[in-house]
Amino acid sequence: MRPNTPREKIDEVLKEVQRLGYDPRPIFGSEQTIIAAIGDERTHHTLESLTVFADVEKVMPVQKRYKLVSRESHPANSVINVDGVPVGGPKFCVMAGPCSVESADQLLTTARAVKAAGATILRGGAYKPRTSPYEFQGLGREGLRLLQEAKDETGLKIITEVLSERHVEHVAQTADILQVGARNAQNFQLLIECAKSGKPVLLKRGLCERIDEWLLAAEYILAHGNPNVLFCERGIRTFETYTRNTLDLAAVAIIKKESHLPVIIDPSQGCGRADLVRALCCGAAAMGADGLLIEVHPNPAEALSDGQQQLDFQGFSQLMAQLHPLLAVTERCI
Amino acid sequence: MRPNTPREKIDEVLKEVQRLGYDPRPIFGSEQTIIAAIGDERTHHTLESLTVFADVEKVMPVQKRYKLVSRESHPANSVINVDGVPVGGPKFCVMAGPCSVESADQLLTTARAVKAAGATILRGGAYKPRTSPYEFQGLGREGLRLLQEAKDETGLKIITEVLSERHVEHVAQTADILQVGARNAQNFQLLIECAKSGKPVLLKRGLCERIDEWLLAAEYILAHGNPNVLFCERGIRTFETYTRNTLDLAAVAIIKKESHLPVIIDPSQGCGRADLVRALCCGAAAMGADGLLIEVHPNPAEALSDGQQQLDFQGFSQLMAQLHPLLAVTERCI
Amino acid sequence: MRPNTPREKIDEVLKEVQRLGYDPRPIFGSEQTIIAAIGDERTHHTLESLTVFADVEKVMPVQKRYKLVSRESHPANSVINVDGVPVGGPKFCVMAGPCSVESADQLLTTARAVKAAGATILRGGAYKPRTSPYEFQGLGREGLRLLQEAKDETGLKIITEVLSERHVEHVAQTADILQVGARNAQNFQLLIECAKSGKPVLLKRGLCERIDEWLLAAEYILAHGNPNVLFCERGIRTFETYTRNTLDLAAVAIIKKESHLPVIIDPSQGCGRADLVRALCCGAAAMGADGLLIEVHPNPAEALSDGQQQLDFQGFSQLMAQLHPLLAVTERCI
Amino acid sequence: MRPNTPREKIDEVLKEVQRLGYDPRPIFGSEQTIIAAIGDERTHHTLESLTVFADVEKVMPVQKRYKLVSRESHPANSVINVDGVPVGGPKFCVMAGPCSVESADQLLTTARAVKAAGATILRGGAYKPRTSPYEFQGLGREGLRLLQEAKDETGLKIITEVLSERHVEHVAQTADILQVGARNAQNFQLLIECAKSGKPVLLKRGLCERIDEWLLAAEYILAHGNPNVLFCERGIRTFETYTRNTLDLAAVAIIKKESHLPVIIDPSQGCGRADLVRALCCGAAAMGADGLLIEVHPNPAEALSDGQQQLDFQGFSQLMAQLHPLLAVTERCI
Repeated sequence: MRPNTPREKIDEVLKEVQRLGYDPRPIFGSEQTIIAAIGDERTHHTLESLTVFADVEKVMPVQKRYKLVSRESHPANSVINVDGVPVGGPKFCVMAGPCSVESADQLLTTARAVKAAGATILRGGAYKPRTSPYEFQGLGREGLRLLQEAKDETGLKIITEVLSERHVEHVAQTADILQVGARNAQNFQLLIECAKSGKPVLLKRGLCERIDEWLLAAEYILAHGNPNVLFCERGIRTFETYTRNTLDLAAVAIIKKESHLPVIIDPSQGCGRADLVRALCCGAAAMGADGLLIEVHPNPAEALSDGQQQLDFQGFSQLMAQLHPLLAVTERCI
Repeated sequence: MRPNTPREKIDEVLKEVQRLGYDPRPIFGSEQTIIAAIGDERTHHTLESLTVFADVEKVMPVQKRYKLVSRESHPANSVINVDGVPVGGPKFCVMAGPCSVESADQLLTTARAVKAAGATILRGGAYKPRTSPYEFQGLGREGLRLLQEAKDETGLKIITEVLSERHVEHVAQTADILQVGARNAQNFQLLIECAKSGKPVLLKRGLCERIDEWLLAAEYILAHGNPNVLFCERGIRTFETYTRNTLDLAAVAIIKKESHLPVIIDPSQGCGRADLVRALCCGAAAMGADGLLIEVHPNPAEALSDGQQQLDFQGFSQLMAQLHPLLAVTERCI
Repeated sequence: MRPNTPREKIDEVLKEVQRLGYDPRPIFGSEQTIIAAIGDERTHHTLESLTVFADVEKVMPVQKRYKLVSRESHPANSVINVDGVPVGGPKFCVMAGPCSVESADQLLTTARAVKAAGATILRGGAYKPRTSPYEFQGLGREGLRLLQEAKDETGLKIITEVLSERHVEHVAQTADILQVGARNAQNFQLLIECAKSGKPVLLKRGLCERIDEWLLAAEYILAHGNPNVLFCERGIRTFETYTRNTLDLAAVAIIKKESHLPVIIDPSQGCGRADLVRALCCGAAAMGADGLLIEVHPNPAEALSDGQQQLDFQGFSQLMAQLHPLLAVTERCI
Repeated sequence: MRPNTPREKIDEVLKEVQRLGYDPRPIFGSEQTIIAAIGDERTHHTLESLTVFADVEKVMPVQKRYKLVSRESHPANSVINVDGVPVGGPKFCVMAGPCSVESADQLLTTARAVKAAGATILRGGAYKPRTSPYEFQGLGREGLRLLQEAKDETGLKIITEVLSERHVEHVAQTADILQVGARNAQNFQLLIECAKSGKPVLLKRGLCERIDEWLLAAEYILAHGNPNVLFCERGIRTFETYTRNTLDLAAVAIIKKESHLPVIIDPSQGCGRADLVRALCCGAAAMGADGLLIEVHPNPAEALSDGQQQLDFQGFSQLMAQLHPLLAVTERCI
């Protein structure tokens, strides 16, 4: 309550707190009165609306709102099974491939190259969310067919993005992991539809999503019966313009602390510049990330999307060589 | 190009620019060479990927990427016809109503109150995007039925949010304006589906969407055949924590400059605090906004969502009284 | 405390709270225990360091940290006397002039023009904080001399920036208001030095300063004996790149609510574009700001600093004409 | 120029560009004309003010504004000599100690502990910039005396913050490195004064300072004759509230790319939480930072400032043990 609120005004608020299903406990300080409200906000009416009382200075929620994703509900690390490839355990998981699937040749040569260098999961966008309607929107079903071919030939697992509830069913026929992009990070209908597919879901952090909002978005998936979620930090939007986004590597340690689910780093989106990818991957590995999602292209200068942030094959294998000793220090391997 | 790039490296880039379909024109400065590339990036391969050449320092797009929404393509203001109510002309448009539709009584009393005070469009959420899966998600189809009832009784037009491509068809049966919320601001599949309905679409700015991205999101709707778009500024996310968001009122002047489409201000989401709504509405009206989207509730303290930012009936009619003389100054009326 | 913290760990924290001079009151909830700590954090050791106890989940300060600047300590509006010109009362105060003082001619013609249009205070930078050491740094003492001349001729009061503790004394000989810029917004030694001069201080908000930090920076000035502070919102830094900064006009209403001191809007810095200045001024006036700080230059294209955001004389007098009826609506005048 | 600008308007701008000392080269595209202006913006009038011409759509500076700090001006890494301790070479530099100097006992026990664990430089604030005037402001000269004592006893070099131009001289008598904090990151008068002292300067990045602004702030120091600058990333301000700031670890790779000067990471300020410090240090070391600045306190819960982010002695020596093998991978040692 504001300083010097008269007693009868405090009583009004106490009554309202009670009416909303909480047990109110006033604490009378020297200048201000605080009302502690005991009860579970996840099952009751939220109290934030109390600020419409002129004498209520602010309402401060204490309880965390996520449950199933929290470390407290599941103290051990969860290891997600991606059709036989474990993510979240001692094996470090590298997912690599082109930003967009462009052709059979582009995809297959990339798949072979990243497999040779140690990747176990192939990434490639068939449906692409593009800022402008005039940009390349992906090959769609044809892109999925090419991903299936690459999977059949190389044995790599597939991760690819879903943009629409209506695509989940057919994308899930090819994909081993459904990727939900930053722009759909709080598209809750899409999250629910992905949950229902039963497939692992890689949930990218929204461009300006707070950690607790990200955890709550994952909570949607778990609350709809699918425990197979991978968090993916891919950079947040800040005032800085040197990089496309600011990769928040602290998210690795925070997710490990707050949740039992694996956390993957996407350095390509994170900085938007191929020349910074290597350093960011090393940082992520040393900090305890469970894996990486890296854009690799046979000829980045001619990529149909985001060429400026894609590694070529040589750059990718140099990176992999650099990761091995760093992972060994943390008793992990690729 | 970086300073001191040797001539043969410059030639490589000139060749690549040409190969990608542009006409390259080098300009040799005292320290650096610049290559101007002539061509329309909306119909060609983007040039950003040239930064993978080590000697390319940066790629700077010059051309604006939006076309149909631009003021240049349509110099006069567009007036959007909302089932007989014009938005974007000399009449200032007030849309008001509860954050969520909660009950027949709540909705009807609000509809009557806002109509009496001068609103012409009733807002009310039937489907609610909520950060947590444990929060009230809206009444869904029942909410739409109540909105239809309120419309039949009062004659107010209806604006309500769509969350899912699958909802567009049935929401459009009741809604006169489809509202696309901040979290779906770049859910392009949803935008395309809304475009196809032919209904006016109120497109909120995303939480951290740049002006040009917002214009391009609207471009998706126009490029899919629907010219009836209303921009709605509702606050962006910044470091400030006093308010829920930072309402970027400059967006009014910017949209008026860059586009022919109307711009509406949502001060309730913009600040998240009822006590600041009045001042923000006055600012918006004085700056030339085409209308307001305001949350009004019979009893904000007991609202099922966002009570802290909803006005009560008295607050709303005081606000309306305050707007009249301000609008008169700019030769408009409600 | 974290959920399920054992009682003995709670007791440890209770003891520590007491040792630090507070009266601890535990509240035992169904899942979590909260410890309310009664005491004045402004006179005691802060409690934030308690988070080093592994079982303390978070520490949430309740009390506002500012006192002298708060509306509670002084319910009526303060009117600041600028050598006879009142700021903060029914007279709306317009401060105008060039970004930098460049020459006698440039300054005098501007002074005459802004006076003729209704400004009462002349702005002009003699010392300029520039991002690069190679940019024009201002005329220094010669600039102050020219400001004195313009004051003697026109009777306008002078506002000019101080960059250094060492400049305060001689700048205060000419200036009627000392301006502290955004980059020095938390340069507390400079604030203290300005406080000691006894002159009114216009305190710009820092580029990423939260409202409560801004209020606390002003508190430094009041706590050092100088009650004559003007807050000046000049735009905060966000992800948006269309404008140089995002002008947070809600700050007008917030400062009016939290403090008794006047609030001034600087739209020139706020957007960095002359073509948006007019709309922002209208918004500020309608929302209840106490005045404006506007950059005006005889020939903006040739200004030595920030030409892109300066109005010419015609633009300025058109703006003034537009403000009169808006101010009349709020029962104020220039 | 805007699309469809008539030729005579283009000519006007060409003339103005020439008048301002540049060589203008128009490029006529299909829709738009671009004017390339050849010349060095560091020695001429800036061109940004051309946007006051109504037909100029935007002005895009191409040239980097920093020179002496750039990698191009000095391709090899600079190794800074801190009174015999090299920073920026193969030896990784750990600076550790309390946030504030509080007492002889606190400082000496900390100095001995951090030295034993491998630190070579002792940090400790004598002058503290505090958000509120009612918080502990540091011991001042007495704090410097205690730092001198600790230096005499342990042989550790000293880094401590300067807040005021007037303090530089006496702080430099004890300090081996002058620390400029985030709030003074663009207090150019202070930077110039530090430059004149000849001492190495550790320049923290401002809370919302862009990389190029940070480089330009360092350019002030070099341009005033002092080449001994250490960059220190300490977290930027974003919308995220879980951590106090968002540590931008990409800054390590960016500074290494753009400049020859060393880069240090401050993880304590960076996250504001002791429980995340370890992971951030590992990331920084793996990414190629030249050193760390870490807050260590004998009893963090009772620290007079920022206790929540300080490590205790055990935490610090565990961290050091973890860094050795990571540094070995990158062929460095402490």
